[in-house]
Amino acid sequence: LAVLFDSASTVPDLLSIFHEQEMTETVHETNGHGYLATFVGKNGRFVILRVHSHGLVTIDLQCYEEDNISQLDNLLNALETKLKALLNGNITRIKRLPALIRGAKVDRYWPTADGRLIEYDIDGVVYEEDSAYQNIKILHSQQFGNILVLNGDVNLAESDLAYTQAIMGSGKEDYAGKEVLILGGGDGGILAEVVKQKPKMITMVEISFIKVIDGCKMHMRKTCGDILDNLKGDCYQILVEDCVPVLKKYVKEGRMFDYIINDLTAVPISTEPEEDSTWEFLRLILDLSIKVLHPSGKYFTQGNSVNLSEALTLYEEQLGKLSCPVDFSKEVVCVPSYLELWVFYTIWKK
Amino acid sequence: LAVLFDSASTVPDLLSIFHEQEMTETVHETNGHGYLATFVGKNGRFVILRVHSHGLVTIDLQCYEEDNISQLDNLLNALETKLKALLNGNITRIKRLPALIRGAKVDRYWPTADGRLIEYDIDGVVYEEDSAYQNIKILHSQQFGNILVLNGDVNLAESDLAYTQAIMGSGKEDYAGKEVLILGGGDGGILAEVVKQKPKMITMVEISFIKVIDGCKMHMRKTCGDILDNLKGDCYQILVEDCVPVLKKYVKEGRMFDYIINDLTAVPISTEPEEDSTWEFLRLILDLSIKVLHPSGKYFTQGNSVNLSEALTLYEEQLGKLSCPVDFSKEVVCVPSYLELWVFYTIWKK
Repeated sequence: LAVLFDSASTVPDLLSIFHEQEMTETVHETNGHGYLATFVGKNGRFVILRVHSHGLVTIDLQCYEEDNISQLDNLLNALETKLKALLNGNITRIKRLPALIRGAKVDRYWPTADGRLIEYDIDGVVYEEDSAYQNIKILHSQQFGNILVLNGDVNLAESDLAYTQAIMGSGKEDYAGKEVLILGGGDGGILAEVVKQKPKMITMVEISFIKVIDGCKMHMRKTCGDILDNLKGDCYQILVEDCVPVLKKYVKEGRMFDYIINDLTAVPISTEPEEDSTWEFLRLILDLSIKVLHPSGKYFTQGNSVNLSEALTLYEEQLGKLSCPVDFSKEVVCVPSYLELWVFYTIWKK
Repeated sequence: LAVLFDSASTVPDLLSIFHEQEMTETVHETNGHGYLATFVGKNGRFVILRVHSHGLVTIDLQCYEEDNISQLDNLLNALETKLKALLNGNITRIKRLPALIRGAKVDRYWPTADGRLIEYDIDGVVYEEDSAYQNIKILHSQQFGNILVLNGDVNLAESDLAYTQAIMGSGKEDYAGKEVLILGGGDGGILAEVVKQKPKMITMVEISFIKVIDGCKMHMRKTCGDILDNLKGDCYQILVEDCVPVLKKYVKEGRMFDYIINDLTAVPISTEPEEDSTWEFLRLILDLSIKVLHPSGKYFTQGNSVNLSEALTLYEEQLGKLSCPVDFSKEVVCVPSYLELWVFYTIWKK
């Protein structure tokens, strides 16, 4: 509960509400930073009341899950009513936020790439494993279905066909009879969609495949269908390998692909590339990829949150440093489970 | 900061970190609900340390906006490092949440319809007015553009063409030469899109138009274009009236519409319709609307968050109680600024 108001000296009247609840009060010395009192009540209840010097009252109420929630709602209602009465006409804004739940079996808070606090409607952990490369979780969301979370980043949910469509060129491409290379893409979503268009051959290179495949082929079937049940099919093969040596081999062999889809881990958010080798690594993969891209071919990749303009600019700067000159376009796409708009790139040889 | 771990008795070592910061400690008696201490530091800093009896440590750090954030990050880092060292191997989970900002000029927290805590990337208030019916705000979001917020509900952002398309039948309808009735829709989005398809006539009935139009025609131009600049055009008219008497008049006159789009306020979330006249009101509008719907016509409306299944079921029950029998279908749509999936209905005469 946070109230913004114009005049203070309302403290004694508020205190009576806590006293009625038989809470034990402690007043803290703040050295000129307003009034600060804490109250311990029954069932482990704890209240922090601050009347800040610039006309803000904040009330934090902590309680346990098994506490009587309607009693606590009544307490907050009483505080709100009292404050409204005391400050009649002087309240600029009053706001009560949903409770933050900590230490629950299921963690519902997965901040966006641009660092905002977001509560998901997650009600269960479906799968959790650690590979040599990452922590792999599949969480169940009421609205998005199962969500693949890699190292704490929301990667893809069963609701996110929009992601797969965007990274395949937003329906404007024809994959029939084409040579396709997928880097990463362990959830199988891209593979499953490209296969439907009857390409000549898809080669997918995914390093951390085994633990991801186990989870996705069991729990992300709306995304991958049955494509991950076999590492090889009529027009696809999955190489469980580091893509860098594979790309180097293809360069040496003079292999060419009509489409390359890079679905490796996201652009690093670091804005100091000189201190971070991730950009070097990204550029290496880009450079090798462009070398095996057909002159009229297209390279697709995801970028980052549309709000992370510095990281996007840095990525675009890398595109100017490749051994083979390229042009690019970008598109902003709404991927349902991301809860933030996402940038996708199309890159081609000049 | 919340840590879940298996063994306790780590308190003294944690305390040393606060003592190094010259914070004043108060230990509170909790009557068997774990260890609870608070610390007041310089600049109005305040820390709540709780070691809960079921193996959870929570640390809340409160500070002012103008405080030295990197110093505070270092404090949290030190606490995290110490906890990891003390509980080596026994930590099930460790999580640090983005700061909750209270009392700021711009409120960034607009919970979803299903009650989840969501932080928007809002950086400014563009417009704020109170009409006789509602509080009207237009807020600026970095990624979604301007957002119309009515009575605290996110209504529509400039990014949300998906909403307008969904409530027009998801591109499967042809409005050319048709008679169209829009109920509500004060932001002008639907009107602007339907006009493009050259219907015979659009009648839009919006009660709280004046304050909404002022805001939207200035600040939501990506949504409404110039359509709100005039209350009348070649193939549309806007009636600034309560839709109920207008519908009653149309029923009496025997008017018929090919398409009716209900964009009035959302389905009430109350699950006790017998105690709430909102459902009665909703049904009245539905009943009148169906009476002026051409036998082969379609009625479109938004429903609710896909997670609010009780409210959706109640709405569907109302559809079974109309004086003219109807069938319906529904679609789940991702409206970018909603940050939750939304249900849209298509209703037609049996």
